This record gives sequence, structure tokens and C-alpha cells, in this order.
Amino acid sequence: MTGDEAPIPKEVPPKSPDLSAWYNAICYKAELVSLAPVRGCIVLRPYGYGLWERLQSALDQRFKETGHENAYFPLLIPESLLTREAEHVEGFAPEVAWVTQGGNEPLTERLAIRPTSEVIVGTMYAQWVQSYRDLPILINQWVNVVRWEKRTRPFLRTLEFLWQEGHTAHATESEANEEVQRMLDVYVDVAENIAAVPVYKGEKSASERFAGANHTFSIEALMPDGRALQAGTSHALGQNFAKAYDIKFADENQAVQYAWTTSWGMSWRMLGALIMVHGDDRGLRIPPKMAPIEAVIVPIVKGGSDEATVAARELYATLKKAGLRVKLDERDLRPGNKFADWEMRGVPLRIELGANDIAQGVATVVRRDKLKGEEGAKSAVPLAELSSRCSELLIAIQANMFAQARTFLHSHTIEVSDRAEFYKLVRERAGMIDIPWCERGECEAHVKAETSATSRNLRPLDGAAVCVACGEPARVRAYFAQAY
Amino acid sequence: MTGDEAPIPKEVPPKSPDLSAWYNAICYKAELVSLAPVRGCIVLRPYGYGLWERLQSALDQRFKETGHENAYFPLLIPESLLTREAEHVEGFAPEVAWVTQGGNEPLTERLAIRPTSEVIVGTMYAQWVQSYRDLPILINQWVNVVRWEKRTRPFLRTLEFLWQEGHTAHATESEANEEVQRMLDVYVDVAENIAAVPVYKGEKSASERFAGANHTFSIEALMPDGRALQAGTSHALGQNFAKAYDIKFADENQAVQYAWTTSWGMSWRMLGALIMVHGDDRGLRIPPKMAPIEAVIVPIVKGGSDEATVAARELYATLKKAGLRVKLDERDLRPGNKFADWEMRGVPLRIELGANDIAQGVATVVRRDKLKGEEGAKSAVPLAELSSRCSELLIAIQANMFAQARTFLHSHTIEVSDRAEFYKLVRERAGMIDIPWCERGECEAHVKAETSATSRNLRPLDGAAVCVACGEPARVRAYFAQAY
Repeated sequence: MTGDEAPIPKEVPPKSPDLSAWYNAICYKAELVSLAPVRGCIVLRPYGYGLWERLQSALDQRFKETGHENAYFPLLIPESLLTREAEHVEGFAPEVAWVTQGGNEPLTERLAIRPTSEVIVGTMYAQWVQSYRDLPILINQWVNVVRWEKRTRPFLRTLEFLWQEGHTAHATESEANEEVQRMLDVYVDVAENIAAVPVYKGEKSASERFAGANHTFSIEALMPDGRALQAGTSHALGQNFAKAYDIKFADENQAVQYAWTTSWGMSWRMLGALIMVHGDDRGLRIPPKMAPIEAVIVPIVKGGSDEATVAARELYATLKKAGLRVKLDERDLRPGNKFADWEMRGVPLRIELGANDIAQGVATVVRRDKLKGEEGAKSAVPLAELSSRCSELLIAIQANMFAQARTFLHSHTIEVSDRAEFYKLVRERAGMIDIPWCERGECEAHVKAETSATSRNLRPLDGAAVCVACGEPARVRAYFAQAY
Repeated sequence: MTGDEAPIPKEVPPKSPDLSAWYNAICYKAELVSLAPVRGCIVLRPYGYGLWERLQSALDQRFKETGHENAYFPLLIPESLLTREAEHVEGFAPEVAWVTQGGNEPLTERLAIRPTSEVIVGTMYAQWVQSYRDLPILINQWVNVVRWEKRTRPFLRTLEFLWQEGHTAHATESEANEEVQRMLDVYVDVAENIAAVPVYKGEKSASERFAGANHTFSIEALMPDGRALQAGTSHALGQNFAKAYDIKFADENQAVQYAWTTSWGMSWRMLGALIMVHGDDRGLRIPPKMAPIEAVIVPIVKGGSDEATVAARELYATLKKAGLRVKLDERDLRPGNKFADWEMRGVPLRIELGANDIAQGVATVVRRDKLKGEEGAKSAVPLAELSSRCSELLIAIQANMFAQARTFLHSHTIEVSDRAEFYKLVRERAGMIDIPWCERGECEAHVKAETSATSRNLRPLDGAAVCVACGEPARVRAYFAQAY
């Protein structure tokens, strides 16, 4: 995939031959983003922000249902604080943007723009926690972060990005571990049931672990080009940050203990996964639960008659009142151009309203998830039934898009037991290559050097086996794939 | 008012003798904020963020109802872009935090952390607008900004703050002017009907105008110490930014014209106004529409019986189901301590449930907006009627708090026609001092030098008059006051 220095093509090329070219083009053409006049940054335009708002709302509701509250911690972190957790700073220092001047004065200490907020959150939790009664602390924040990346791509890798980061502190390790899994499951739920992107969940290998964590868990989606995409992570931080930032509490027996902390995050990267997984040669296909516009009404105005316009406006009012996110397209364009435009933007339902339709008391409803001419792609719906029929169709589209994506994931998940076959398949990006694995860093480094692939995530191994990649005893099952 | 270097008192002092000390103490004591380990920054804790979420939601709903969409523009602005609008850069350069290093590399060009986003938004609008068909552009963003302030106070003045900034571009001056007034009216609506803070709206004087604007309008609230607080601004930017950033369009006759732009913003400063206006010696008083918790249930558990606990849990479930933002306080504390705690946090309604109440089939409901012993402060409400009665009481509390604040504002708005009296009253912080004014910078500078007060905002003058401050012919009516 090209970086942001690549020119943006005027037209969107077909998706299958070159996913990268298609992705880059559709992100701009559908007005999800614009390139910003700052290296590696994007502007999230209203249609793209509409996707983000849907994702935010789905996550935020689930965070609150699981007992979390939102808060806001500062953007700027003094260098001396950042350097207290050794592994963490080693992991993040190369990516930090530094503020060295405030107004006209040089600063005595550099301030990091947060690449993530464990440091500042840990510092505050140390002040807020004295007793076991103060635990757990269950906080999330919706913020921007900056990581000084060399190469960038819309949504997938940008210098600045929007995300949420959850930070919790607990009295016991088991409670912290439960939290890590609970939030990983929230990510699975939102990825699959809202974004219609099927994922595999599991633990990351040591080399892919968050800097400063004992265990990192992820959800991994599979893109149409056979590359995996990590779409959310949840970290068991053990007592590492509690010790570095002094988060201590008196337990029920007045003994002083360090807290157990977790963190977990999902970013606008999830939107990149959604775009790649669902799009087709005609452009975006947005699953209804994520769609800023669920249905667009296109009046087919012919001659001087404004009959279609009047009917379309009435219909718009009716559907809006019924709670549908609906748009009425009255632009001075040919209907065919409007159809292509809204298909490109991935709106799940198109409602055409012409003189013939009106004469018969129906509207023509077209599903974006089906191919042209496919059964059920187009139907005439009596106007009186339109709002209930739209709701049914949106549910059907959501389910169909998830089923399509799941079929792709499953048909591209390949259990392999032969070493040569394994190396061949990961090199060819054949999908999620599933093997018994030794879990050794040397083995993973060798696979990476040979194929550019790494383990995506790990899960328990049933019974004894040898590592397909190297022949040593296997300890886990792992998905291997090249990754975004 | 003390800056953030001042020690935070352990107890909250009474409000009336020293508003500053009270304000500083209550912000921390009620766990709205914590001091961050970065000079001039605060952490917005969950209870404070809950206030912010209510304000956000009220504003966001109104922005969308008036046709605006949300988007996100980058945090970092290259220095060469920032300097293109001369007045704007002059106004903001002294307050800019500069990023000079990314990862391990020094940057070839410094990047400003946005103090506001006219520059980056204008740059993008220039790319997006070609034809009159592309106008208007009506965009808002919810973001953090950084201004390198010397002295800081929670909410009122902090290095980093959260706000929304709206940015619009229009084909005509009159359309842009309508937008400026429309959004000013949204601010009045939210301040008065959501935050229950009465305000005066009007135009700012030249010296108080936004850097780069032709006209700035504001809403101004009056604090109990007689100082005014600017709580929202709306700017008519004319074609200044369009010319500096090249926002041009072909009109219906194919003639190329510069667009007319506006911007408007409200920040978490509004929360500071709410705290000062409504609080009393017992702590915060939060108007129901802003309250993260509308009602708290306190079971009065006596002896070994858990009758009150069981009844309180049932009541909690009922009220929650009815859509109330309700909290059940089952902490191991004396009821009296809980009462004081929730009063301090400003929860509008307290519902006490003890054995006597239960025996009579009622709960004791206590209003936070009334004084202890005041008529209607406390009432016994039959359990079956509780959820509807709570809804009624919350409406009554919202109305009463607004009425109280409006009475204060009106009784401290003083029309003055005598020069000596004018100087005396503004010096004494007697309130909003309302005079016919000449609108001259020299006159305002003189008033400021003598009294620390400035004009808050201006409105048309009815008939002829002389300026009360200097005796020259008056051109407007103006409120003068010392300001936060």
C-alpha cells in the first residue's frame, strides 16, 4: 500500500487487482478523509467522522454498561514522568513528538505529546488510591494521540489518531485479568456486531506485546489481500505501572499493596478494517449499524413535473420521523450519477421514486450489499410499508455483510501441518495460517525474516504437537499472517 | 482568585466571604478535577467529565439540528501556515506551544499545537470549495487546544482545555452574519436553559475582538463576586481568512469570489460559570439538566435490619428504568455523612428511605436548591408516585435555579448616568454596569487603567446620549465589569 506521498488517483480503480490503490482512492473519493498540510496527518471529514461517531457510540455505551466512566487526562507529559517505567519508555520514546517551547520561552523540561496515557493516568491513580475502598477505578478517555510514524496511511497509520484508551486499577490480579478479557470481548462484540468485521481474539506473542505489559490480547481481522489487521488490544499490566508510579493501597488488613492495572484501546484504525473488508469495485459498502446515512431517497424527476419531488419529500419526512438516518438527494444531477455516487459512498439502501413507482403506490428499494441483478437486490415496496420494510432490510443487510465477511475469513483460515507449506502460504498471504507453535522469539524472528509474517495471536493448544514453523515442541496454537 | 500554585484547602470554606477560595476548594473537593503534574493543566475527573458530557450533548444536538456536521482537523499546524493571517498570528503567537522534535529528529519546521483551528480549517476549505454549490460548509469539531497561559485556574483558564469550535464558510456576507447570530443564540439557549446561567449577549469592543475577526459576539454571565465571565463567542471573520487561505468559489455567474467565514466556540469554561453561579456554602448545586446524577438514594439502615436496603434497591431499579440518572449510595458511612457528601457534590434530589418511611409507604425527598427548613425543601412522597414526582421536582428545581440566578443578574445590573458613580461601581465590582458608551479604545483603556474593568459587550443605543465614562458622544450601550 502506498504511503501518503503517493498521488491520489482521480478515479477509484477496481478493488480486487490492487487493494492498496483502491483503498487509498476510496478514502479520499468518498470524502472520508483529506490529506492535511502536516506530514502524516489526515483530516477526518464529516462522512468519515460520521463513521467514527457510530463506532464511538457503540463502544461508549458498552463501556458504561460495564461500569466505566469517562474522564480527561492532559495531552502533555513531562519527560521525567515518561521515563519512569523502563520498558514503556524504550518502546515509545522513538515515536514521541516533543514540545520544547511555550509562547516565547524555551521550556526547562521537554513535554511529550501523549503517545498513550499509562504514565499520566498512573501518576493520578497514585494520588487517588489510598484504600481498597478506592478500588477498582474504571476509567476511559476519548482522545487524540501522536506517534511519530515514518510511513502513514489513512486510518491505518497516521501521526495523530483518535482513539479511546481505558485504564483500570484493581485490588487483585484475578480481578484485573477478568477486566482485560471483559474489554477484549467488548471489542469482539463491536467489531462483529456493529462493524460486521469478524475477528479472532487471542494473546499476542512476546515480541508483539505492549511496552510495559505482562500480557497483551488482541482482536485480528483479515483483509481481502490476505493481510491481517490488529483492530483492538487489551493489556494486563501486572503491577509494573503501579510500582513505577506508586499506585499503592491499604488492603482490608491494613497491609500496603501495589494495585494491578490494565489498559485497552481501539482507534479509528477499525474504520480502515471496515472499509477494506466490505468495499467492492463500486466503492464503499457500509454496514447499516455504522452508516451515517442508512437510506438515501432519489426522486426520478422527468419533464416539468414535480410529482416525484413532492412524494420524495413526504417520504423523507416519514422515514426521518420513524427514526431512520435518511438523506434526500435533490441535487441537480442525473439519477444515474446519483446512484453511482451513493453506491460509491456505501449507503446500505437506495430508495428510488419515479412517476411509475408513484402510479403504482410503491418505491423501488435497492440493497447495496447485493450485486446488480442478484436476487433480492431490487424490490418494489408499497409506500405504506416502506419504513417497516426498510428496518427489516437494514437488519438483513447487516447480517448478510457479516456472513459474507465471516465466510471469507473462514475460507482463508488454513490449518497447516507441513513446514514448507506453512512458509509458502504465509509468504503468499493466503490468509490466517493456523499452526501449533513453539512460542519462541527466535522462531518468530526466523519466520518474519523469511516471509514478513508474524504471529497475529495465540490460543491454548489441545494436546501435544510440534511447532510447524521449526519442529520444536509446540506450546500454543497461533495464527500467522503478514500484517498491516 | 488563586492560581494553581496555591495550596488546595482540605475543607471547603463558605462561599460568600471569599469566592476564590471556595471555588478552588470545591473544584477539587467535589472531585471535578485534579491538578495534573504539568504546569497549568487539570485532569477532568469522572464527575467533572459527566458535567462536560451533558454540556456536549446539549450543544451537539443543537449543532446538528441547525445543519452542522462534526469533523476532525489535525492538532499540529506548521508555522508557515499559522503566520499567513497577520492579525491572527499576532494575537495567538505568544500563547503557542511549539513541537520542535519528532522521535529522535529535530524538525525542519516548527509545528504549533492548535490554540484554535481557523488556520488549518481555512486551508482545507480552500481545497474543498470550488463552486457556490459547495457552500455553505457547516462544520464543528470537539477538540483539545493549548494556550500557553501564565496564570491558570480550573476550568476558567488552563494551558490545555476542551472545547468545540464551529467553522463555516458561506457565499454571502448576510448568510455568514445570520450564522454568527444563530450560533450565538444556541449558546444563549444552552447557557440559560441547560446550565441555568442567565447571560447577556452582544458584540465585543474592538480591543476584546478575536484576532482576525471583523466582529466578535459573546455571551456574558455575572459571577457572585460581581465579576463577569465570557462563556461563549461567535465571530464574523469577513473575508479575512478566505483571503489569507484562499477560499474562493465560482458564483452562479462564474465570477470568482472569496467566501465569508465564521467561527464560534464554547469551552469547559462554561462549567466554571455554572459552579460559581449556583454553588452555596454547602458546596455545588448542579442544575438537573447538567447533573450526571439527578437523584441519590440513601437507605437509612438501623440495627441489623436490611429492610431499607432492600427497599432502596427496588426503588433504584424502578427509577433507573424510568430513565432517571440515579445513584444508590450503599457505602458504609453514617447517613448524615452521606447527606453532606451529596449536598457538597450538588446532586439535585436526595431520596431518604428509612424504616419510618417504609412503614408509611413513602420516601423522604429533599431538594438541593432550597435552604434547610425552607418551605418545600423536604417532602414525603408515596413510593408509587416517586418516579413521576421526581421528574416534576427536577423540572421545578431547574426553573428555580434559573430564576434565582436571573434575579441575581438583574438586581446586579445597574444603569448609571453619572461618571463618578460609574467608576465607583465598576471598581467595587457591583455587577454589570450598563452605560451609554462612546466605543472608543482610548476611553476603554482609561476605564481599564482606573478600575481593571472593560466593556463586556455592546448593543444598539436607543436615541442620543453621551458616554458616561468620558462625556464624548455615545454610540452604543455597553455593560462594563471586571472579568474573569
